Amino acid sequence: MSRLVMKFGGTSVADVERIRNVALHVKREVEEGNQVAVVLSAMAGKTDELVGFCKQASANYDRREYDFIVSSGEQITSGLLAIILQDMGIDARSWAGWQIPIKTSSVASAARIEEIDSANLIASMEKGQVSVVAGFQGISAEGRVTTLGRGGSDTSAVALAASLDARCDIYTDVDGVYTTDPRIVKQARKLPRVSYEEMLEMASLGAKVLQTRSVELAMVYKVPLQVRSSFDAPDNIPVVPGNNFGPGTLVCEEELIVEEQVVSGIAYSKDEAKVTVRHVKDKPGISASIFRPLADANISVDMIVQNVSPDGEFANITFTVVANDLDMAVSVLEEKQQEIGFESLETASNVTKISIVGIGMRSHAGVAAKMFDVLASHGINILAIATSEIKTSVLIDQDYTELALRSLHTAYDLDAE
Amino acid sequence: MSRLVMKFGGTSVADVERIRNVALHVKREVEEGNQVAVVLSAMAGKTDELVGFCKQASANYDRREYDFIVSSGEQITSGLLAIILQDMGIDARSWAGWQIPIKTSSVASAARIEEIDSANLIASMEKGQVSVVAGFQGISAEGRVTTLGRGGSDTSAVALAASLDARCDIYTDVDGVYTTDPRIVKQARKLPRVSYEEMLEMASLGAKVLQTRSVELAMVYKVPLQVRSSFDAPDNIPVVPGNNFGPGTLVCEEELIVEEQVVSGIAYSKDEAKVTVRHVKDKPGISASIFRPLADANISVDMIVQNVSPDGEFANITFTVVANDLDMAVSVLEEKQQEIGFESLETASNVTKISIVGIGMRSHAGVAAKMFDVLASHGINILAIATSEIKTSVLIDQDYTELALRSLHTAYDLDAE
Repeated sequence: MSRLVMKFGGTSVADVERIRNVALHVKREVEEGNQVAVVLSAMAGKTDELVGFCKQASANYDRREYDFIVSSGEQITSGLLAIILQDMGIDARSWAGWQIPIKTSSVASAARIEEIDSANLIASMEKGQVSVVAGFQGISAEGRVTTLGRGGSDTSAVALAASLDARCDIYTDVDGVYTTDPRIVKQARKLPRVSYEEMLEMASLGAKVLQTRSVELAMVYKVPLQVRSSFDAPDNIPVVPGNNFGPGTLVCEEELIVEEQVVSGIAYSKDEAKVTVRHVKDKPGISASIFRPLADANISVDMIVQNVSPDGEFANITFTVVANDLDMAVSVLEEKQQEIGFESLETASNVTKISIVGIGMRSHAGVAAKMFDVLASHGINILAIATSEIKTSVLIDQDYTELALRSLHTAYDLDAE
Repeated sequence: MSRLVMKFGGTSVADVERIRNVALHVKREVEEGNQVAVVLSAMAGKTDELVGFCKQASANYDRREYDFIVSSGEQITSGLLAIILQDMGIDARSWAGWQIPIKTSSVASAARIEEIDSANLIASMEKGQVSVVAGFQGISAEGRVTTLGRGGSDTSAVALAASLDARCDIYTDVDGVYTTDPRIVKQARKLPRVSYEEMLEMASLGAKVLQTRSVELAMVYKVPLQVRSSFDAPDNIPVVPGNNFGPGTLVCEEELIVEEQVVSGIAYSKDEAKVTVRHVKDKPGISASIFRPLADANISVDMIVQNVSPDGEFANITFTVVANDLDMAVSVLEEKQQEIGFESLETASNVTKISIVGIGMRSHAGVAAKMFDVLASHGINILAIATSEIKTSVLIDQDYTELALRSLHTAYDLDAE
């Protein structure tokens, strides 16, 4: 008898009919002999409505009250799923975060799960009852309702799976993790398996399938994580019992990936902006004088390039930030112009970050060089570069996004046959 | 420093702007020097929407899940009021039923409050914080969310006032308790004070200002209860401090009512149906044979009249039930026709129950007789009569409702000058 956590997002529970479809997926797993806990988001659009109320009440709303208000959305969907499961003859009950309890830190709207007392849940599941858990929420030591931040239901599901020693299936509106965005590259393939490390890079580089924090947790607690579609016909999905492997993508440990590709996927993000600080003295401490004030203003800097003039006396420093932070970054630097001693600032937001990701890069040389070659052969200029052990990111002009994705996808042998 | 519980219903919190108006009422009371707890209903229409979801999920929904779902409505309004109060510079926080906790019985959707641990609430109020309490809800011994049944927020407010040793102001969409329905009788007057006993009779006889259970509780715990309008300009209400007496109607102990009227008010209910059981043997046990099966089917019988034929051998028995129970009552009796031995059943639902209510009736003779005289003088036939110490009810043809109300209102000197 194995334990399974199934998580469904907002579009999968958008109305009572959709929730009925979710119940069919749950029924299938119960009939397969699994002990099942389900984690739900709020109905699509519901959280936005509640956030709207809070903003209308005050521009400066108390985040503890916000958490109390928006957590009601998951309460509704989990109660409804319990009713529908009972109607299908399956014993089920709903659990609010505070009822389990899922204990979190006290940072309202961005709480972190600290401990899950899953004894009650396990007792109920061992009786054959499906536990329907309101995602995204917990309770602080002070007894206030907390929420985990946007996308937090993924994190609820993985944390619950860790505490129940269960595997975790994340049902989304896509049917798995792809080599790249299939809306742009028709030849994109679904990956049968991907490692935690790769998934983590992809999630933080712009692939929106899973919340980054949930992948981190899965990696730390070695929770087998499967991404699959909630729009498939629930009774028509072949599941290989005991294999943890269904029709979606399994996010798992590296050792379980049999056919290892050098590059597993190509992620991209248009949500970037570039700032060039022109004509600063190339002397020790100059970088700190630029990046310290940005860090103090809570602005994360991603890629950094420094070009030194031929005489070695002056330099241009280019870096990227997320597009939302651009205005703030400019005003922080302008305030320090005297101190830093730059001539001018230049900004651009029509840029895209393209990243190749793959655990095979560790053991293969020349992977990044190939990327630069491919882009050069298509006349695409590289504005900045950043690398890690298992990824290489480049910044390019946004106009070339599609061309770059397609050429790289072919060059790394990722195209579907 | 006196403690005050203020309760606002669904139309008073229908949207964020209305909740802002509620906050102004609260602000006024805080500035008067009161320690304030506020009890809120859900936004008007919200509970119906949630009930609709439950019915769509299953005709036979689990009432514990229903309670979990519908209790979210009060969670939203109380969080929003806390945010708005803070925005006005008033310290405030929301409390769910389970956070206080308000402990109830385990009967889902019809739970009764058993105990309120108000220590946390009192500590918070003594620090000068306004407690915004989600009405209508509590927590069972099993840790499940319960609700108190429709209109339960009135009961939450009175129970909370009892546990806080506070007075209780109920804000509604009318500005007090009237001698009768002002939509029908233009001369209806607002009563400055009315006794618990009278209010209880009026509430159960059809005046929909307060939930019956809340008046019972107020009477038992001697909670001074004031009914007033939430649509008055919040800064424009004269309050006499220390007097517990504002511009609405005070529901209080009999001793506090200075100018005692013989009849305080006239209630009516069109929600009645009449059943006549024709031609039964007039023998001992015949009433039991009719009313026992009805009681077993959970049907409450109100007025009962028995007419015996001149020879004393046969009788017709007439009684009333609430209109909703009529079909059920008929089928219960038809099933027992052999046993009871009646000839036929006759039903009518075009009837109205008119009731005069007044504590003065205890000490004045001829009050009921005057009622019968007045109705007779207008040619209105009395179909049944029921009396208690402080009320007399008659059943009449529904067509005469307005005429009866107006003539009785004048006859008992209730008309406004």
